[in-house]
This record gives sequence, structure tokens and C-alpha cells, in this order.
Amino acid sequence: MHTQAKDSPTQSLQAESPKRNYPFNCWWVAAAADEVTREPLCRWLLDQRVVLYRTENGAVAALEDRCAHRWAPLSGGQLVGDDIACPYHGFRYNARGICTFVPTQSHVPAALKVKSYPVREYAGFIWLWTGDVAKADPGLLPEIAWAADPAYFVTLRRYNGELRCNYMLLQENLMDLTHIPYLHAGAYAEYGGWHKAPEVKITDRSVTYVQRDSGVPFPCTLVHIEAGKRVNRIDRGTFASPACTLIGSEYEDPAPADGQRGRYNAQVLHCVTPISPGRCHYWNVFAFDFGQEIFKSHEAPAAEWDAIVKQDRTAVEAIQTTIDEDVNGDRVPKVLVRADAAAVEAQRIVQKMLQAESG
Amino acid sequence: MHTQAKDSPTQSLQAESPKRNYPFNCWWVAAAADEVTREPLCRWLLDQRVVLYRTENGAVAALEDRCAHRWAPLSGGQLVGDDIACPYHGFRYNARGICTFVPTQSHVPAALKVKSYPVREYAGFIWLWTGDVAKADPGLLPEIAWAADPAYFVTLRRYNGELRCNYMLLQENLMDLTHIPYLHAGAYAEYGGWHKAPEVKITDRSVTYVQRDSGVPFPCTLVHIEAGKRVNRIDRGTFASPACTLIGSEYEDPAPADGQRGRYNAQVLHCVTPISPGRCHYWNVFAFDFGQEIFKSHEAPAAEWDAIVKQDRTAVEAIQTTIDEDVNGDRVPKVLVRADAAAVEAQRIVQKMLQAESG
Amino acid sequence: MHTQAKDSPTQSLQAESPKRNYPFNCWWVAAAADEVTREPLCRWLLDQRVVLYRTENGAVAALEDRCAHRWAPLSGGQLVGDDIACPYHGFRYNARGICTFVPTQSHVPAALKVKSYPVREYAGFIWLWTGDVAKADPGLLPEIAWAADPAYFVTLRRYNGELRCNYMLLQENLMDLTHIPYLHAGAYAEYGGWHKAPEVKITDRSVTYVQRDSGVPFPCTLVHIEAGKRVNRIDRGTFASPACTLIGSEYEDPAPADGQRGRYNAQVLHCVTPISPGRCHYWNVFAFDFGQEIFKSHEAPAAEWDAIVKQDRTAVEAIQTTIDEDVNGDRVPKVLVRADAAAVEAQRIVQKMLQAESG
Repeated sequence: MHTQAKDSPTQSLQAESPKRNYPFNCWWVAAAADEVTREPLCRWLLDQRVVLYRTENGAVAALEDRCAHRWAPLSGGQLVGDDIACPYHGFRYNARGICTFVPTQSHVPAALKVKSYPVREYAGFIWLWTGDVAKADPGLLPEIAWAADPAYFVTLRRYNGELRCNYMLLQENLMDLTHIPYLHAGAYAEYGGWHKAPEVKITDRSVTYVQRDSGVPFPCTLVHIEAGKRVNRIDRGTFASPACTLIGSEYEDPAPADGQRGRYNAQVLHCVTPISPGRCHYWNVFAFDFGQEIFKSHEAPAAEWDAIVKQDRTAVEAIQTTIDEDVNGDRVPKVLVRADAAAVEAQRIVQKMLQAESG
Repeated sequence: MHTQAKDSPTQSLQAESPKRNYPFNCWWVAAAADEVTREPLCRWLLDQRVVLYRTENGAVAALEDRCAHRWAPLSGGQLVGDDIACPYHGFRYNARGICTFVPTQSHVPAALKVKSYPVREYAGFIWLWTGDVAKADPGLLPEIAWAADPAYFVTLRRYNGELRCNYMLLQENLMDLTHIPYLHAGAYAEYGGWHKAPEVKITDRSVTYVQRDSGVPFPCTLVHIEAGKRVNRIDRGTFASPACTLIGSEYEDPAPADGQRGRYNAQVLHCVTPISPGRCHYWNVFAFDFGQEIFKSHEAPAAEWDAIVKQDRTAVEAIQTTIDEDVNGDRVPKVLVRADAAAVEAQRIVQKMLQAESG
Repeated sequence: MHTQAKDSPTQSLQAESPKRNYPFNCWWVAAAADEVTREPLCRWLLDQRVVLYRTENGAVAALEDRCAHRWAPLSGGQLVGDDIACPYHGFRYNARGICTFVPTQSHVPAALKVKSYPVREYAGFIWLWTGDVAKADPGLLPEIAWAADPAYFVTLRRYNGELRCNYMLLQENLMDLTHIPYLHAGAYAEYGGWHKAPEVKITDRSVTYVQRDSGVPFPCTLVHIEAGKRVNRIDRGTFASPACTLIGSEYEDPAPADGQRGRYNAQVLHCVTPISPGRCHYWNVFAFDFGQEIFKSHEAPAAEWDAIVKQDRTAVEAIQTTIDEDVNGDRVPKVLVRADAAAVEAQRIVQKMLQAESG
């Protein structure tokens, strides 16, 4: 199915409010895999404080970070085998959140338990299911082609810190790349393909936009095959779930040198996890299907990427501030144009998920 | 018409609350004239974020600082001729707030517009009308005698920054100079005239108090004509609008030296602009009708004035804190005395303007 | 009367909310006695700003720190004899809060007065009665044995600053010492007596728990009689009022050396004063009935004690954060065990006092 936003502007019916707009029934990135060790880690997501640690066999445990007794944070305590001990009165909980030990009495009340989260380690991240445990289907994890394909090579993995904005402002940024020639004008000065509204495809749970361009240089964040080389390009951005968007770029070299390949694929995974309605975590992973050797000669991709993220961050945080300061918020709706079509569809998916949860 | 507060104390019926107490139908100072250039300036006033810039012919444009599309602040963007371009997706607006260019489509939806403010450049300030555009009468700008009188010379123009208090706490300070012998005891030790409640005159839209004194020295913030010289003095403070108070001092030298003038006038304009109910901007301008030569010999009036403003600021911000912290606010009303008469009348004018706007 | 919490867990019906949970009809510590001088002191307690000073004869005056006129804080002003002058317009108040002088008029309106607090100097502290003045019975001050007993020697008096937690989180900490082997594991490694739930006794207005142990070393915060010496010990912790808990330890030396005493008493007074629902002051006083000579040889008790308070502070502030961040607070009640019995009784007393005040 294809959709195209009508030429007449769509007016959103109400400004974003600080209320929750993230579904719980979703796999959300809680941490990079190597952050979770035998040292308990406290991480906030979806307005919940979670403690993450590995059991002795390396499995990841994710518990509500609040002792059921006096509400001290468990993450301040220490591991005793596969259990975690509360730092205040020494109560211990196992990886399923069941209290196993109360120092001052032999009887352990059944009510002494904390929430335990379904957890998956995938694509170098720890994913948590924050909603109804019965619905925690691993099949709902996003399909990330490079995660299982040995042809791909991860060139960059980045945590951009806590952003002071609602997670959907970042998703909307990722769903409309026509901001690139303006917000990232310096980095992509030569590249003109994002000046038009893209084609949009939707499914029940995803949105994909497609941009095509020809005779453009490789973008600055990727390896330069050859000075001055121009390629044809297809970009496909997919809102795979509220938690992540995948942007894949396919480059076709119309005249490859002898013995050189004609096609190159670059995949960028963007993971966005709400902390609260006004804050979110943001991670990126770059994976390429072309040689590590070539990439090694590329200079400072991390610094280039950080500069771009800083521009996005400045924009989305400024918008969040604008929304927060809008004391008469309902008066002026946002006015949307055709290039907003993919972002509008992503918002519809989120709204549908929220309605399903509240129903 | 004259009024005199009765001897019995007037009790204000309720403590200040953090709700809005500033009228929109008023000319408010947004900036000093030289702050507004071809570089867009973001300025908050009356809980609205405004972007100010000059068009190519030097006129001042004042627009709502929020792109109608995705709400990015326009002030982060750049000027293209007389238009301002949004930094996020490049949408452009003209000085009347009408969108003139959408990069990704030729059709510009009519809904793409931002609020444009009536604006006047006057007395070295940029004044904005924040209310009903149809009522933006330039005749409602305050009458500032020195602005058009070549006899006057501006000796000091000062922006005191953002004060953490409601703007009326500052106006009440300016409407009751009997605080001077206490709050500014050091600066005015010799001067005893403000120890009594003044005479008060009101009109529909203004309040004026008059204080008379004789045989006093020139105050420290003004030029000393002659060491030890004593003058007669009349002070007239006028609440000209919620946005400004003018305090004029007339000095009479009872025994002028040969060939010297016998009268001197000093005018101080105080401009107060609410940022939000709990914060405001504060500017001052000093203008004298006596010679620039004399004034040049006066030492450090800016430093003297800053010290006085710091005392006022400390007082009004402490009172705001007291109001904010008053968790049982309705219990204890303020108790007023005769010296509060001018401030009480100023509050009545503000309340009348607020009622007219809500009616 | 004795109570013993049942083995089945008691679930508190609702999570702490940020609403007020401190009774006004209580003597609360406002300051150490030597903090109150001829220099006005501003101190916040029970969401009230109070100014404290001494009159010329050394008595303590405690007034609402807000001039009845324009609400400037009196604590910014100066003393004139036994009166305090407002820094803004010079109004003066006597130690009973009655206005005695208005600079601009001879008539002083009867409404010009500020609240005056009943005050007592006792046990080295200034205690304020914050509620109904008619009920300010000095007999309700806590009984502090060492305050009037010359056998006792104050070894340490400590102000721990403002804690970012509700005062009852600290009281609950003091009413359940079974946290000691965990939270203070380092300091009390050798000491095993607090591993069991204590016996609890209650009266109308107090709760006392008793812990007994034998063959234990003196704890690190007290003097060491003799290296390796072991004693029998009885600890009695008494919640004397919402404002303070007294913890007395009685040490029995089963085999005193020739001419040495067999019993030693140590008393620790903990004073907790709410600033607001989310903050409190915390003071401690240590008093011993054994020789000053012995104590002098004890090294750095203040540093040892500060380290312990820092652990308690970290715990109670973390719990407060957990409570504050609990956006779905009513879902998960705390689960209590037998060792919580004394804290539960203390909460009941507080609730009873609150009901009496609201009734």
C-alpha cells in the first residue's frame, strides 16, 4: 500500500502534551550489550527505573530498581551469586524478581517481589519488553538485516546521551530527511537529493520512505571510494517500531573500475528509547557490506557523525522547549506538508498501539 | 482628581498568584533599538517567544519565533532578503509572517504563517503591541518628553537583565519612593524628603505622585553643580502604562551664581516588560536638560546606578520568593498604609485593563 | 503495652505523597542555641520561613519572616533594640510580632503584625511550637535524661545539613536498626546483634524498641575501654515525638578491672525537623555518662559519625527519589516485615496527631 499526503496541509489536532505517548508493548533498547556486567547498572526507560546485571552464566537480568520493602534502589547493592541484595536491609532477589532472603526472619513473605522484565540480547543491544509479559513475542523485535549477515561490518556504534525531547521528535526527524539540506547544510552541501518529498509505503506496523538520486557523491559519513566518484543512490528509511528506525542506502557505481564491485550497501540503525515524556536515549549503529580495509582509511567518521547528531539534537531540543513553553498550546496547530507523510504515518502507528493498550 | 489612602489599612483581598497579571493590549519594550539588526534576535515577553530583525531598509520585523510547520525557533535561522528562513527545513517567512517558500513543494499552504507584531521604534527602544492588532494605536505609546525635546541629553541607558519577580513588584517599588531612605540608605543618607507619604493624582490611564522637598543636595546619581550646593526639589513619578514609569525631578537653585540657570530637570524612564508571571526585563534611561559638559565631569553614574538597582532587585526578588513559598497564601493579606496609595492606583489600572481584555 | 508485627506482611495502603505529613502541634528544633544571636537568622521549618534573634537580655524571638506590609523578609533587616526593622520600608516589629513603627505615618494600623512562635531553649537547641499557641505546653518537650544530669558529658553535637527527603524516612531509619549490618557494614562488621527484629513497647505518644546482645565489642563511635574488651549491651530507641528519637545504649562489663565501673551509658539524640514535605534538617547529640578523660583519647568520632550519616543520607535520599519518581505510585505498595514494627507504630502516632489537628 502506498500513501501520499494531500497537497492541502494537515493540521495536527493538538500540540504535543507532556503526557505519555509511548507504548509499553514494545521491545525498547535499554543498554548496549557491553554495558551490562556483574556490576549492577541502573537505567531509566519509559518512566521506570530498571536495574540490569548478568547472572553467573552471562544471561541478562532486568528488574524493577526498587526493593519491595522500603523502596531503596537495588542498583546500589551487590550481587550474591545470581541474586541482587538490597543495600539498605539486605533483602535479596533472584533474576525473576522473587525475594529469596530476609535477614531478620526465616519466613519470606510472598508479596516480597519486584517486577522482572522480559529481555533479549540482539544486534549488540539489550532490548526490554516493558508491557504485558504475555505479549512479549521475540518475533516483534525489529528485523535488522546486518545483525545476522556476515557480509556486514559494524563501523560505528554510538550512544548520544540523553536528549531533552520527546522520543517522537527524534523519530519525526528520522522520518523526514528533507531537513538535511538545511539543518546539515555544511555536511551535505553537494548533495541535492533530499530536496523533494519522498514516496511512502506503509504496513500494519511499519512505514518506509524511498528517495532516489543519481550522480551524487558518497556522503561524508561513509567511505570515499575514489575522489570525485559519483554514484546512483536509493535511500530507504523504515520506521520498524516506535523504538527504532533503519535507514539503508544502496549505492550503485555506474562505471566500476576493473574487478571492483558495482553495488554498496550502508545500513544505519537509530534506536530511540523514552526516559520520560520529555527525555530520551538515542543510539546509532552504522553497518556496511563493503570492506573493512576501505573503511580503515576513512578519517574520523565518529567526529563527523557527532557533529551531525549535535545539529539534530539542537533542533529537536529547541522544538521541545517551544512545545513546553507554549502556554496557550491549543491555539496554533502545526501545519504539515507532503514531506511529512512518513512522519504522519509513524505517528498513526504509535497512536494505534497506544489505543490498543488503553482499550 | 486627587485621592488619598485612608488612614485605616487597606488589605489586599488575595496574595499575588503566579497567574498572568499583564494586559496584552499595551505597548511593551522588547529591546533596545540597537539590539535589533540583520542578525535575528530571540526575545521573550508576555510568555511569547518573539524573533526580531531589521529588513533591508532598516524597518523592524517582529514575528512569533516558532515555525508553523514543526515549531523550530525561527531565530536560529538566517535572513534571505527581508525574509527569515527556518533552520530545520528551510521554510521562509516575510516580515508580515506569511510563508513565502517551502523547499519541497511549489504550493505554499495558506495556513503556513506566524504571528506578526505591530512594532514602533521610539525613545531608543523597540515597542511591541502584544494584543489585539486592531487596537494597536500608536497614540497609546507613553508620552516621553525628552524623546522629542532637543534640550534633553541622555546620560545613561541601562538594561538590568531578567529579574526573577513579577513585573508589578517593580512597578510598586517605583510607585512608592518612601523605600529609598531604608533600602538605599547608603546612597541617600543626607536626603530626608522621602520620609512622608506623597500626594497622588490619577487619570483614566495614569497615576502621578508628587514629593516636594527643600534645602537638599543633588542626589548622587546626578551631577553635582557645586560642592555643598542645596536645592529645592519636586519629584513627579508617573505610572504611564503597565510598561513604564517616568520619574521626573525638578531642581530649583534658590541662589544661582551669576549667569547660571536656576532650574534643572532630570527625567528617568523605567521600562518593565513581563517575560512570564514570575520574571521581567527592566531598562532605565536617564535624560537631563542641562549640559553634557557638566555631566562629563560626573564620576561613574553607571556604577552608582547599578548599585541602587541591585538593592531594588534583591528586595523585589526576595518578595517574589516569599510569595512563591507561601504555601498557605490566602491566610495572611498584605497590610497597606497611606504611602501605598500610588501603587494601589497603579494596580487598579492594571486590573481594569485585564477586565477589559477578558470581557 | 507490647506489640509485635504479625509474620504476614503489612502492606501500607498508599505510597508517600508529597503532601504534608508533619503535625504543627509539636516542639520542633529550629536551630542550635549558639546559632541564634543579635544577627537575625532566617530558618525554614514546616514550610514556614522564620526569623530568629536574641533580644538584648538574651531571650530568643521567633517571628514569621515576612513583613506584613509588602512581604519583604525581615531577616534581611537589622535589630533596633529588641525590635527588628524591615529592610524595605523600615517598619519595625517587636519580639511578639507587633508593629511598633511606620516611618511615613504616626498611626500604626493594628493589622500590622506578624506571627510570633512560642520558643524554648533546651538541651542546647532552640525549640519552636509551630501550631496552636494555646496548646504550646512546655511539658510536651521530649524528656532528655542527659540534659539535666551532670553525670552526662556531651561528646559530639552535629548538624548534618538539609536532607532531600521526608523527615519520616529518617525517623523510620532510626526506628529500625536492622539496617546497620548492611548499610553500615564496614563500621559495624563485628557486631551481629541487629540481625533480629526487636521487642517493641508503645505508649500514647512514644514507641520504644529494645535490642539485647552479649559478648560484643563497643561500637566504633564510642570509646574503647580496653582493646578486645567485650560487653553485654541493651539498646533502647525511643521515638519521643515526631521531632526526635533518643537511642540509649547500656553497656555492662561482666568482668570490670579492679576499681573500674561495670556499667556505661551512652545516649544519642536525633532531631529531625521538616523543611517541606521533601526536605528536612537533621541534628545529633552524643552524651555519655563516663569520663571525659577516656573520651579524649578516642580518635575522630566526628569523622566516623559523619561517614555513617552519609550512608544513611544516601539511602533515605535515594528512597525519596524513588518515591518522587513513582509516576504510578499507587500500584505497588511497600511490603513490611516484623522488623518494621517500631516504625509502623511511629507512623501511627504521627497519623493520630495529624487527624487530631484536621478534626
